[in-house]
Amino acid sequence: MIAEIIAAGSEMLTPYRQDTNSLYLTEGLNDLGVTVAFKTIVGDNLEHLTNAARIAIARADIVLFSGGLGPTEDDLTREAAAAALGRSLRRDNALLVDLAKRFAARRMTMPSNNLRQTDIIDGATILNNANGSAPGQYLDVTIDGERKIVILLPGPPKELKPLFTDVVVPMLAKSLPPRYLAKRMLRMALIPESQVDARTAPIYQQYPDVETTILAGSAEIQLHFFCAKPTAEEAQDRIDELSGRIEQEMGDSIFSSNGESLEEIVLLHLGMRHLSLAVAESCTGGLLSERLTSVPNSSTAFSGGVVVYNEQMKSAFADVPPELFERHGAVSPQVARALAEGIRARANTSLGIGITGLAGPAGGTGADALKPIGLVYIALSEGEDTQVKEFQINGDRDRVRFWATQHALEFIRQTLL
Amino acid sequence: MIAEIIAAGSEMLTPYRQDTNSLYLTEGLNDLGVTVAFKTIVGDNLEHLTNAARIAIARADIVLFSGGLGPTEDDLTREAAAAALGRSLRRDNALLVDLAKRFAARRMTMPSNNLRQTDIIDGATILNNANGSAPGQYLDVTIDGERKIVILLPGPPKELKPLFTDVVVPMLAKSLPPRYLAKRMLRMALIPESQVDARTAPIYQQYPDVETTILAGSAEIQLHFFCAKPTAEEAQDRIDELSGRIEQEMGDSIFSSNGESLEEIVLLHLGMRHLSLAVAESCTGGLLSERLTSVPNSSTAFSGGVVVYNEQMKSAFADVPPELFERHGAVSPQVARALAEGIRARANTSLGIGITGLAGPAGGTGADALKPIGLVYIALSEGEDTQVKEFQINGDRDRVRFWATQHALEFIRQTLL
Repeated sequence: MIAEIIAAGSEMLTPYRQDTNSLYLTEGLNDLGVTVAFKTIVGDNLEHLTNAARIAIARADIVLFSGGLGPTEDDLTREAAAAALGRSLRRDNALLVDLAKRFAARRMTMPSNNLRQTDIIDGATILNNANGSAPGQYLDVTIDGERKIVILLPGPPKELKPLFTDVVVPMLAKSLPPRYLAKRMLRMALIPESQVDARTAPIYQQYPDVETTILAGSAEIQLHFFCAKPTAEEAQDRIDELSGRIEQEMGDSIFSSNGESLEEIVLLHLGMRHLSLAVAESCTGGLLSERLTSVPNSSTAFSGGVVVYNEQMKSAFADVPPELFERHGAVSPQVARALAEGIRARANTSLGIGITGLAGPAGGTGADALKPIGLVYIALSEGEDTQVKEFQINGDRDRVRFWATQHALEFIRQTLL
Repeated sequence: MIAEIIAAGSEMLTPYRQDTNSLYLTEGLNDLGVTVAFKTIVGDNLEHLTNAARIAIARADIVLFSGGLGPTEDDLTREAAAAALGRSLRRDNALLVDLAKRFAARRMTMPSNNLRQTDIIDGATILNNANGSAPGQYLDVTIDGERKIVILLPGPPKELKPLFTDVVVPMLAKSLPPRYLAKRMLRMALIPESQVDARTAPIYQQYPDVETTILAGSAEIQLHFFCAKPTAEEAQDRIDELSGRIEQEMGDSIFSSNGESLEEIVLLHLGMRHLSLAVAESCTGGLLSERLTSVPNSSTAFSGGVVVYNEQMKSAFADVPPELFERHGAVSPQVARALAEGIRARANTSLGIGITGLAGPAGGTGADALKPIGLVYIALSEGEDTQVKEFQINGDRDRVRFWATQHALEFIRQTLL
């Protein structure tokens, strides 16, 4: 069965806003065995929306609308879907009473526009919206001998998501053929997609019953596996077997096989070994700290650090000897090492990280003047021992900064393995 | 004239990937006076893509395809567009020679699949792609008495963007009615959208010839103005007049009227006054430093700071007296003040910012145990004088952290005004 998702709203046809509901809906539909074949984004225009609705009902088995169920004159999904289905709208009395009560409870007069939210397509099941005033609608009908499921959902994500997951998914699950599935995502940092594909394709191609997707993200590669079978056990077995063989092939390159982020994994490794970490960041400007502290409870392993954006700060907060700047430049293995060792000693942690580099767009000055943009040194101090690595990162300022933090996290992970 | 954008690629029908090219294309089309009325996302399936192409050519004046021009069997946009137009494909000899030369220069054998990239729709103008091997195609044709412009663009953004802006936009500009426009964006931080609308609507509604869009972003509101006129001067005059009146109404709430980010504006204010800044962050974990250092050349005004994620770090790096934690808790106006004053003194800067708060999901401990999640204290020290503000921010960890940095930046900006 194939689905089409129609996102209604003129703001999604501007350069500033995107439909994101469809990503959420797609995941839920895929889990039910439904493939999304088309997505259409259309403005608040009755003719355009009705045209899109007609086309979708003709070419897809399941059509989901998101948005256009509010009380304003721009909210036209009810009218468009009804017209495309050749059905009429009826004002629902029970909904009307409910809505009137909501307004009365807040001692507000109900604007007459709100009555439109009680218009229901003939034959539709009303889906109660626990988080807003616009109910969803669900139709399972036969048109020209073909079964069509048409679903209307409100646009705000905090209304759409619970309504879809708690109400629509169980309704669809009951009316579609039963299906059991297993999923798994393997994540690898800082490895070229082509290398992952070359090494894993000979394995996953032996599993035609498992849908494999390779995705290149921000300085990471994800391998997604998806398998549907007549029983849950069969599906899980296939996924486990394939994942096991891929994990054997890719070894330590895989940082996570249950979806955790690299920063979560690093914090997990630190926690398991009762280790603490502090960082001294120059070119990454706090991004490494920010990524680590984005994880709840990160304070158990991460003590914090310093953002030392000039030479005085590097010396004042991480005890970098000032003569290093003149002799080697701030972007040097020597300064990276001093940062790592300095912050570790000052913060009294098990591990210290020092990062220095040229994020661009401007180049370095003084002893760094001839160094290329994208050059980054990262040092990891464990006390007696300090390792320093050199990286040349391509791309703009944002990319250099992000990849540098990815290298730092991967440096810690590989050292702790 | 209305346009439809068709994004071709099965990966954009998964839960993991989105079409983003259309945002870029939409901006360029709007500037030409063309409204995007539909966006369709379709997979690498000839039947589906041809169906989408036929519908688009029927309902829009301009149809832009992005993606599906590569050499693989999944790249089907050429075939689909040709079928929908009822035209044939011809293999272009000049392109073939070029492509063969590219491979020869790299001493590579050209896989025969690559020949598909030289297939041109009958009557199309070839658009040279400076950043990839797949050329674009441009057709300006009459179908059933209606003029249709059909454009095929490669999917990778670094190929699509220059090809669109440098080649397609000038071609469209030459063949569409001339048009002059002016644009302006006003940005305001931390002010409710309803308040902005209530205060500005009575003004912008007097300018029906200016298209006004209010957008709520991350802790900011943007007002976009867009005006097209027979002359550039007329358009600019209208925008200037409206902006001027809105700026008068909203006053200092507007942090930027030329698109600069709040962090850029803060750095600009600091630079103009030859002031330097250092920050001591607890709950924001480096995000404030990260936002400031994301701006090129931020080091001229921003010295850096510390991420002090436990009590020992707060004392060791920002001289917070340890007794404050027991007496008032780490999340207290007293600790915020000590952080701001401590980091300012230590970093020897003109200004110091201290941030402490509960980002959640876990609550505070010790003296902070009863404090609500989302409580944040921010202090700004200017040496003799230190101001402390209290905020209660709703939402999850990410939101609390981001809004706290927005409050801190706005605190600095308002103080410097």
